[in-house]
Amino acid sequence: MDPSIRQVTLGLLGLGTVGRGLVEMVRRNSDLIAFKTGLELRIKRALVRDPSRARPLPADRVTTRPEDVLDDPEIEIVVEVVGGIEPARTWILRAIERGKHVVTANKALLAEHGDEIFLAARQRGVQVGFEASVCGGVPVLRSLSAGLIANRIELVCGILNGTSNTILTRMEEKGESYAEALAYAQQKGLAEADPSLDVKGIDSAHKLAILARLAFQARVSPGDIPTEGIAELRPEDIADAREFGYVIRLLAVGRRESGAATPERGSERSDRLYLRVHPAWVPRGHPLADVRSEFNAVLVRGDATGEMMFIGKGAGAEPTASAVLSDAIEIGRASAPALQWNLDRVDTLAAMEGESRFYLRFPIYDRPGVIGLIATALGNHNVSITHAGAALTPNLPGRGNVRIVTHLVRESVLRRALTEIQRLPVLVGKPVSIHIFE
Amino acid sequence: MDPSIRQVTLGLLGLGTVGRGLVEMVRRNSDLIAFKTGLELRIKRALVRDPSRARPLPADRVTTRPEDVLDDPEIEIVVEVVGGIEPARTWILRAIERGKHVVTANKALLAEHGDEIFLAARQRGVQVGFEASVCGGVPVLRSLSAGLIANRIELVCGILNGTSNTILTRMEEKGESYAEALAYAQQKGLAEADPSLDVKGIDSAHKLAILARLAFQARVSPGDIPTEGIAELRPEDIADAREFGYVIRLLAVGRRESGAATPERGSERSDRLYLRVHPAWVPRGHPLADVRSEFNAVLVRGDATGEMMFIGKGAGAEPTASAVLSDAIEIGRASAPALQWNLDRVDTLAAMEGESRFYLRFPIYDRPGVIGLIATALGNHNVSITHAGAALTPNLPGRGNVRIVTHLVRESVLRRALTEIQRLPVLVGKPVSIHIFE
Repeated sequence: MDPSIRQVTLGLLGLGTVGRGLVEMVRRNSDLIAFKTGLELRIKRALVRDPSRARPLPADRVTTRPEDVLDDPEIEIVVEVVGGIEPARTWILRAIERGKHVVTANKALLAEHGDEIFLAARQRGVQVGFEASVCGGVPVLRSLSAGLIANRIELVCGILNGTSNTILTRMEEKGESYAEALAYAQQKGLAEADPSLDVKGIDSAHKLAILARLAFQARVSPGDIPTEGIAELRPEDIADAREFGYVIRLLAVGRRESGAATPERGSERSDRLYLRVHPAWVPRGHPLADVRSEFNAVLVRGDATGEMMFIGKGAGAEPTASAVLSDAIEIGRASAPALQWNLDRVDTLAAMEGESRFYLRFPIYDRPGVIGLIATALGNHNVSITHAGAALTPNLPGRGNVRIVTHLVRESVLRRALTEIQRLPVLVGKPVSIHIFE
Repeated sequence: MDPSIRQVTLGLLGLGTVGRGLVEMVRRNSDLIAFKTGLELRIKRALVRDPSRARPLPADRVTTRPEDVLDDPEIEIVVEVVGGIEPARTWILRAIERGKHVVTANKALLAEHGDEIFLAARQRGVQVGFEASVCGGVPVLRSLSAGLIANRIELVCGILNGTSNTILTRMEEKGESYAEALAYAQQKGLAEADPSLDVKGIDSAHKLAILARLAFQARVSPGDIPTEGIAELRPEDIADAREFGYVIRLLAVGRRESGAATPERGSERSDRLYLRVHPAWVPRGHPLADVRSEFNAVLVRGDATGEMMFIGKGAGAEPTASAVLSDAIEIGRASAPALQWNLDRVDTLAAMEGESRFYLRFPIYDRPGVIGLIATALGNHNVSITHAGAALTPNLPGRGNVRIVTHLVRESVLRRALTEIQRLPVLVGKPVSIHIFE
């Protein structure tokens, strides 16, 4: 093994969907992660409830006894992916007591008992990573804590619950009732058998409480956030929103208003905080309205950055695993800064030629047969066409443009064809070609 | 001063737009930054070309001699915001040689001479921050380096140049020619007198070279990236795109294709990289198509996270200052992890009541005057209305809904009005109220 590689040993509490995603992701990307970071991640053992179920780990790395993970001196980082308050809370506190770092995706636990856990971690001198607790694989928490740290955050407004958003998207796009859309989400594994936490907005309130801590330095109990869910919405509400040019989204909103221009620490402040989870009409054309199905999004407004949006998958095995591993890597890197210019670990990749559909415009003298002439020249180079047409240029008699949309074609092939077409006597200018992004 | 606060002393090279933004942001937010991070940022001195111009710093903190910044032992971090290759390169190398950390927003310099600078920094044991070099205030580089680090990045596709995007947006929305749109951007300070770097795609290629290093660990010279700009586009190209349901954006595309499922370090690889800057048709409804004017966006696809988007202002004094300060704070924090749960430094903020427009739906018996009855009740509570109407429920004779859109109203006021309306004998169910997001 490369001596510059340091091994970081993880133990998992839980081997459900997210735990399996972690095992799979470490297996697939451990070489790449070592290449990028100098760390080799190793999952030594996972705690499971039922040892008889088929597992992605060999039998000797699976246990039903929590102490096999919590008390193993080789395990540096305990990853909690069981969810719920207990026994997750007790296990995490015990791991911390044993001097282990912890990474968790457990928003309910952090929203309710975060202070207890982080106080214990500080006293013991260990880290607790929690990027996965909000917005899955989208690094929103780290962005608030690092990239945007110098800003006064004025607004966070998020679509934080993929289950609710899937239901709303189905109601909107398929005209389904709430019950039908919920059944669809359950069938697709996007909603629990008991969906209350999601559809009543409670999960969003947990996440908003965590966001409020990082964005506004505010200690908020999720129970103090007025919360409405989506279970009461009827198809006519969706239709009415559409009629006025809106869609309905379940939003978690945190807004800070400064009473004083530069509040001083310790002195009386008049800053006020608005926190609320509710369904809302969002105007079509607003980026939040384009957030569909299981996607999450957070709009952040900083006093210096202005508005910014983060969009991505907010849940699921691998997006969550991605966030969990980012925390484990940050802990493993210890003092190294996150933002690094790779010097040694640089890859040599073969340059790849692109394939694309193209829009082509040929400025021409308008003569009979000119479209055919150009289309034939393209065909001779195996550039096939989905659309061809011509338009005259107003105020320039006898001039016009032939406009063509191609099928997928390698760019070098297209360039050769265009070079040949430029020699045709019907052209009055250089052909224009524009990539079509798909 | 609070003994737990550590002072971090900065020196600026340059006091133009970005330099002024930095001074202003530090002035405005230094208390807040100290509260969040325990660091007090202090700008000790700034290098300027012309000392006679009015400055945001007092005269004794402005100098025309580079050595007053580069050789000052009190200055820990040198912030380079002059731009261009020389003398920025020489100054940065000298700062590094003197053992100072460096923060820079200079994409041209990093794209061309990054290896030289980072090698010198490693040898001297100092950090170089460069978050501001791509996408201004949007923490895309840190996200690739930390939040997404465990992913194999398959695609980055960015709108990285605000000048070009402003011109394209004007051509699209105002029907302007390229020359008219450029003149507009220049008049608004969004384009340089010589706009070549921006409109020819060179600035985008610089940024793509930096993204490629962090996303793909690829060493790429911007000169090796095939680059087309937007100066050749004509109004008919914009119109044609619209006719087919597209808009035109200047995209910087990096795509990696894995030849092997798990390539091993050191062994033969068959990974290939596609890098390209070009205008492209982007389908309406795609989030990239909604990125307008001076906004930037980066779409990233990781193997675990799937697609993710970051959108925000890519340039300007304060967004750039935000990114520069995030680097300075990361350097100042040294070994502290970015993602922290604030324990001591927690704010007590007054809860704030929200104001919103609302959509209201009242299930009713269809009787003459029912709209008036409800509207009057709302009016009695000073809830004013922008729209009121009624619709019958199909298949339920005599039943229907009154639908109302309100002006801005405090939520508690609305709730009181709804409570009263619920007592009216015309209602057959609970009123529905949905916030309108604006």
